[in-house]
Amino acid sequence: MPMKKDTAGWIKTVTLAPPSLQDNTADADRLKKTLESRLNTDCVEIDFPLLKNLPDRLRECNYSIRCILFKDNKRWLLAGITAANDSTPVAGLAVDLGTTRVVVRIIDLSTGTIKAESSFDNPQITIGPDILARIHFADKDNGSDKLKELIINGLNGEIAMLCNETSIRPDQIYLLAVAGNTAMTHLFLGLNPRWIIREPYIPVTNTPGIVKAEELGIKVNPFARTFIFPNVGSYFGGDLIAGILYSGLNKMKDTAIMVDVGTNAEVVLGNENWLIACAGAAGPALEGGVTQMGMMAAPGVIDRISIDPQTHEFDIHTIAEKPPRGICGSGLIDLACHLFLSGMIDIRGKFKKSACKHLLKEIDEIRHLVIVPEEKSATGKALTISQVDLDSLIRSKAAMYTILETITSSVGVSLSDLSKFYVAGTFGSFIKPKSAISIGMIPDLPIDRYEAIGNSSLGGATMILQSSKYMDRIDKIRDKITYLELNVNQEFMNRFSAAKFLPHTDTSLFPSVVDQI
Amino acid sequence: MPMKKDTAGWIKTVTLAPPSLQDNTADADRLKKTLESRLNTDCVEIDFPLLKNLPDRLRECNYSIRCILFKDNKRWLLAGITAANDSTPVAGLAVDLGTTRVVVRIIDLSTGTIKAESSFDNPQITIGPDILARIHFADKDNGSDKLKELIINGLNGEIAMLCNETSIRPDQIYLLAVAGNTAMTHLFLGLNPRWIIREPYIPVTNTPGIVKAEELGIKVNPFARTFIFPNVGSYFGGDLIAGILYSGLNKMKDTAIMVDVGTNAEVVLGNENWLIACAGAAGPALEGGVTQMGMMAAPGVIDRISIDPQTHEFDIHTIAEKPPRGICGSGLIDLACHLFLSGMIDIRGKFKKSACKHLLKEIDEIRHLVIVPEEKSATGKALTISQVDLDSLIRSKAAMYTILETITSSVGVSLSDLSKFYVAGTFGSFIKPKSAISIGMIPDLPIDRYEAIGNSSLGGATMILQSSKYMDRIDKIRDKITYLELNVNQEFMNRFSAAKFLPHTDTSLFPSVVDQI
Repeated sequence: MPMKKDTAGWIKTVTLAPPSLQDNTADADRLKKTLESRLNTDCVEIDFPLLKNLPDRLRECNYSIRCILFKDNKRWLLAGITAANDSTPVAGLAVDLGTTRVVVRIIDLSTGTIKAESSFDNPQITIGPDILARIHFADKDNGSDKLKELIINGLNGEIAMLCNETSIRPDQIYLLAVAGNTAMTHLFLGLNPRWIIREPYIPVTNTPGIVKAEELGIKVNPFARTFIFPNVGSYFGGDLIAGILYSGLNKMKDTAIMVDVGTNAEVVLGNENWLIACAGAAGPALEGGVTQMGMMAAPGVIDRISIDPQTHEFDIHTIAEKPPRGICGSGLIDLACHLFLSGMIDIRGKFKKSACKHLLKEIDEIRHLVIVPEEKSATGKALTISQVDLDSLIRSKAAMYTILETITSSVGVSLSDLSKFYVAGTFGSFIKPKSAISIGMIPDLPIDRYEAIGNSSLGGATMILQSSKYMDRIDKIRDKITYLELNVNQEFMNRFSAAKFLPHTDTSLFPSVVDQI
Repeated sequence: MPMKKDTAGWIKTVTLAPPSLQDNTADADRLKKTLESRLNTDCVEIDFPLLKNLPDRLRECNYSIRCILFKDNKRWLLAGITAANDSTPVAGLAVDLGTTRVVVRIIDLSTGTIKAESSFDNPQITIGPDILARIHFADKDNGSDKLKELIINGLNGEIAMLCNETSIRPDQIYLLAVAGNTAMTHLFLGLNPRWIIREPYIPVTNTPGIVKAEELGIKVNPFARTFIFPNVGSYFGGDLIAGILYSGLNKMKDTAIMVDVGTNAEVVLGNENWLIACAGAAGPALEGGVTQMGMMAAPGVIDRISIDPQTHEFDIHTIAEKPPRGICGSGLIDLACHLFLSGMIDIRGKFKKSACKHLLKEIDEIRHLVIVPEEKSATGKALTISQVDLDSLIRSKAAMYTILETITSSVGVSLSDLSKFYVAGTFGSFIKPKSAISIGMIPDLPIDRYEAIGNSSLGGATMILQSSKYMDRIDKIRDKITYLELNVNQEFMNRFSAAKFLPHTDTSLFPSVVDQI
């Protein structure tokens, strides 16, 4: 029968020379030798429990078998064997281990195709929504074990559900790739991250490598192996390594940048020769967490706004086109952009009474602008944005721009030289670059240099399962990264102050915005 | 405090540079790096479960720790850590996994000293005294598991007992080295050896390498590692590899030989450049299993006999000097030697009536020689040796000599050129070389070339724990061995026929014997 093409490289179909009196090599050694010659390596490891059924399996299959392999930097590890003509799917599971949300994908290892994807709230949220609360909890009696149990149980439930929906059984999952930040990686492995948050911020391990899924309690094939993306340090986790892999930054000739926008802005700048990374608080305003009407993206949430420069009329778009009930981060950026372009706020982000007119109200001595009047709102109350909200957004966007300026100038690269500007993360996908440029949050590059790449952490984890060639890149990426500690020094503060204007004190940095004002 | 000198090389006391903001390497990576630099390697592996307590342990000990390591051919494996100033012993366990008897030794890993030794009957004997019965049993439902359970439980009991007798706790045992024949190795690992006894005789694995003790169910330190000596093939097991290591054959300039005498004679010939091995049935007579009065060495068993050439009086020595109740293999060889030298048997090994006189009786038409009259025997019956017993002994000794001639001539070495003749095994230790030479069982070499080395398999397993330098030799020995299949062809039969005389048809081969006749 025709064999499926093995595009990923994790599956090798081999036929061993059958044993004879002239060649009575032991079964396991025979398989090892054949695989080593096929893979051009001197180190294939057969896990001890796999030996048990190996002889019968080999004879049943006439020595023609399909081997599922994984690889760390030095060794190829056998994770399972089936008959060569067994056409049942052999699957992998990519996991983006988010603090808030966990996303999983089932990948067909013989084709690299994504078969299914789903996500679930990180069950550790019951312990604490933020990672710090969990780190403190982990430090109590059996805290790490409890947190590990929560996430593993959650994952097992999701695997069972996802498998149920597809034609794949959990025991057909042989390889897993898991990307998370450093703390989440620890909590996933049952390691106490207490030293991560205490000076000098030391993880238990940055290189967990490949661990048996069974050892972690993951209910997939009993011989399955789990690759855990390495961390660079406490602040720079495997999720970002996966993200870099996914963006391809590490293979680019020209210098590019990747930004994961969230409460924390994580930034990687570099090319095929070097990578520099930093992270800094960009403020929760960007995730819609601060404004009174701010919320996560959901039906009825305003995600796009434009304002007629003449009439100052709002043109509002909501997710799923439901009656408006709040605004998300990308909507807020859109709003700020159009308030500025229509002259309703000044370059400091302050409401202009002359332009805002009757839409401006004073509540508790703070100015509010009505975006949706109560009669059109889904909540029955007017949706407003306050001066405080706007000030917070402006600090956030200024922080973001300052971080971008700081990291680029640290290596003598100009923002305008960036060949690509990757925006990673779910939130990032919703931002309209034009709006973000208008408020001076991101540099005034030609729009086509911006690219939203979505969940880059999940993307990187997926790649690892889609092709064996990517595994070698992981350590190279890790070894290449220089981590830039952001010092909030005078230079940083000067840049920050200059960036607190719309779009910037130095308008020459934003020629395309100046054209619109 | 003064540290114990680490003579074995498995214990490394290291002090890590404490973490700082300038060097925030993760704990596990810091330890790995330090050990890699200390061991001059690029591969130290820290087992995942060891990570859990690593950070607290490092801090408690101020980053000064004692590491217990093991090594396979490519990697150093961390098997445990303690505080650097922890003076509790760190122990290893050497195991000679015999089909009949299992011998264990506790070794202090910091000094290489043997702390205790004991032995127990292989509990698999309840399934079958011989290995073949066990191999068939293993092939039935859960047979391998049951056999594995028997040996592991037996070993656990012995470890508990031995630890109880010494000041060592089972959890202070971190490293194990196990040497057994190929079938026993399989039965120890729970692997079904069914294909070992079926053409073309294929083991499941010849290279089990290092397996976690916990995975095998051995109750020692939970992180302990077990090294299992590799096999060359079905007929040549890890016990012999351990034996070669112990004899040092593989490091000798001049060609030497090692013979493990038993039901099966296992022979290795070689030097630092090459090794050739063979095994052949030498007959159970040599182990005292055939003669009517034959038995294993025990109190009251005749182990030495001499006969006055003039008076033909027997001078009998028994083990523990108890009244005689049987004869063991070495006693039998002594007996045959002296019967021959005193002219009581002829060169074919037949009783000479004229010399044996009244001691000769006919029972069931077979001639018997009374060695101990009934009034002196512990059993109340006369201890006799029959013509059948003697014929059997002569076939055994002829087989042994033929095997020795065959293996040496296969590489063009003369028996007289052997620089050393190592006799391995408990049985071998009891044989008097002079007696064995006299009957032509072993070649007529100067007596000082013979050396009884005792339990060489246990000796090799002990060496692995006593010094890390020996581990690298194992694979070299294994790779160097050529296995010589003994073909019972015309040449073999010719040699065998010539060796069935006392000492040999060609008396010029035994000048020292000729002198005595």
